[in-house]
Amino acid sequence: MSDDERLARVALGKLTEPGDARVAQLVAQLGAVRLHDLLRGEHEADGLPTEVATRLAGLDPARDLHRAATLGIRYVIPGDAEWPAQLDDLMRAEVLDERGGPPLGLWVKGPRGLDELGRSVAVVGARSATTYGAEVASAIAGGLARAAHPVVSGAAYGIDVAAHRGTLAAGGATVAVLACGVDRAYPVAHKELLDHLGRTATVIAEVPLGCAPTRGRFLSRNRLIAALSVGTVVVEAASRSGALNTANWATRLNRHLMCVPGPVTSAQSQGAHHLIRIGAATLVTHGDEVLELVGEAGTHLASAPRAPTRARDKLSSRLQRILDAVPLAQAAPVDSIASAAGLGLIEVQSALRRLHRLELVECAPGGWRLTPAAQG
Amino acid sequence: MSDDERLARVALGKLTEPGDARVAQLVAQLGAVRLHDLLRGEHEADGLPTEVATRLAGLDPARDLHRAATLGIRYVIPGDAEWPAQLDDLMRAEVLDERGGPPLGLWVKGPRGLDELGRSVAVVGARSATTYGAEVASAIAGGLARAAHPVVSGAAYGIDVAAHRGTLAAGGATVAVLACGVDRAYPVAHKELLDHLGRTATVIAEVPLGCAPTRGRFLSRNRLIAALSVGTVVVEAASRSGALNTANWATRLNRHLMCVPGPVTSAQSQGAHHLIRIGAATLVTHGDEVLELVGEAGTHLASAPRAPTRARDKLSSRLQRILDAVPLAQAAPVDSIASAAGLGLIEVQSALRRLHRLELVECAPGGWRLTPAAQG
Repeated sequence: MSDDERLARVALGKLTEPGDARVAQLVAQLGAVRLHDLLRGEHEADGLPTEVATRLAGLDPARDLHRAATLGIRYVIPGDAEWPAQLDDLMRAEVLDERGGPPLGLWVKGPRGLDELGRSVAVVGARSATTYGAEVASAIAGGLARAAHPVVSGAAYGIDVAAHRGTLAAGGATVAVLACGVDRAYPVAHKELLDHLGRTATVIAEVPLGCAPTRGRFLSRNRLIAALSVGTVVVEAASRSGALNTANWATRLNRHLMCVPGPVTSAQSQGAHHLIRIGAATLVTHGDEVLELVGEAGTHLASAPRAPTRARDKLSSRLQRILDAVPLAQAAPVDSIASAAGLGLIEVQSALRRLHRLELVECAPGGWRLTPAAQG
Repeated sequence: MSDDERLARVALGKLTEPGDARVAQLVAQLGAVRLHDLLRGEHEADGLPTEVATRLAGLDPARDLHRAATLGIRYVIPGDAEWPAQLDDLMRAEVLDERGGPPLGLWVKGPRGLDELGRSVAVVGARSATTYGAEVASAIAGGLARAAHPVVSGAAYGIDVAAHRGTLAAGGATVAVLACGVDRAYPVAHKELLDHLGRTATVIAEVPLGCAPTRGRFLSRNRLIAALSVGTVVVEAASRSGALNTANWATRLNRHLMCVPGPVTSAQSQGAHHLIRIGAATLVTHGDEVLELVGEAGTHLASAPRAPTRARDKLSSRLQRILDAVPLAQAAPVDSIASAAGLGLIEVQSALRRLHRLELVECAPGGWRLTPAAQG
């Protein structure tokens, strides 16, 4: 992509909050460069530059890119070879509202290309996870990693960290998506983990370097976690957990939504149970069940067509004897058929049911008679 | 019902295993009295009575009924005022096979009429329940009891007993359905509980007095638990638990099937998780969620019809100004609309989306134009 495009996106990204549908649509209609130039040239009725124009004039996106490069951080935009195409789903009308626009670009730290994330799975959940939840999250993430699915999560306490650790332990690719600049660590306690991920895995943010996390940026970040992944696994989530916001994005983006159940007595599982109960999420208990949903479809061997069975030829001699006692047209009751066959009522009744399943006899007023097929 | 009918059913019940579809169908076609007489008169080709005829001749159903009465046990048959009509679903073709026939009659101990079981809910699960499972079963049964739903279960260790205890503690009606005669206690450790239920609640069996429980009789018993209830709640069930057989009956009988989740690390919850995962069961976490499914539909107040909104009249002055800048026929791009309105691009883009939702503007090649509605 042209330098102008990249510089315009850096500048627009500093001007607006992530996911702004208005910006996304204007970029789609006008292009980032033209939008940038138009906004920078806007004047109020009194002839003075608008506030937006003034703010754009004060930016130096080239310096921002240079500073990022010195920190080992790149800015990836649509059109770049490694741009994750799955993010384009964020442009769909049904998700565009409310922070749903695609990112202008992604600030990225780490050696892996974002184009390797096509089959990634998000593993998210409560910050205040139980040890049960953390163990299950690690196990599921490890299972995904071993099946070569990258794992995407945030960088919070609880399930997020458990997912990264499970992936790392299995030697897999893991991706942390932040609500703050990728040069920052939030929470601070995870600085070491984030540094490690930045060196060996992938750390992503939509907001510019230096940005502090806000509630709004967390919500926007959640849409990226869902959009980057083919499916989202919620391991533990209380009734108002942020993980439910990610779950909601996964649903709106038509991704697989999976939830891990837990004890009904645990508040940390209430959100997951609710999503399963209402049919929004599929219940999963381990990595294999996640893979069943998100893995590539297996190749099934077509079964060889069978020769048509001639049921009557395969009957035992006793069944044939009973079939022979069934009238062709006027149905007879079971006791007269039994008399005719010279066999007991219970055996005959049982045989008639079997013959019925074989479509050789049928019920009719008065009892049983042969089907047209049996007469043939 | 006639004494003959009752006596014939007692006799046929001693001759056959519960749920025998052949017997059920013969009774439906011929009536119990005629079937009894026909079977008793059957002879082999050599003129000797059949084995069935010989066995029937040796029975004394009148004495059986008398002996039951002295133990406070009655025999309830179809046509009796208290016969639970929901059992007639067992005659439906799709459940008739494999122990699916309706019972010839029910041996009953306890003061409550079976006709009071119309809204009952089964609570079943593992014999080797965890304390978690037992507590949840008691709590759910108690919630059902407080909402005046009788609770139906077996008499096994684990979930069955927990369900009865939870119901009794809440002062509710509870029903134990046995795989052996109602004069027996199985397991023996539950003799005291069964005696108590026989005095204050309801104990039911399909097999005659004195019958020992067998695997087959447990499976037949399970169909009664499912058929008597409007829904079945499985609290804990390992992968091959008998409770899954009851669950299967509930599904085949078109009853509600509900499962309580648990830790994915617990083998006792595997069966329940599987049923939820495949969509066979609804996840429930407490009694209220069970009631939501099995309770009688609430009466919803119809909402008063609203006067049609004339969207354009309700717009703010700025929105009206922007709407006024949108061309009628040939669509215009957002920047020319913004110029025309004398307002900023971002505000105008936002306003156009809002006007679009109000169906006042529409997208067209080249940008935006008014809808026919907005022109009216």
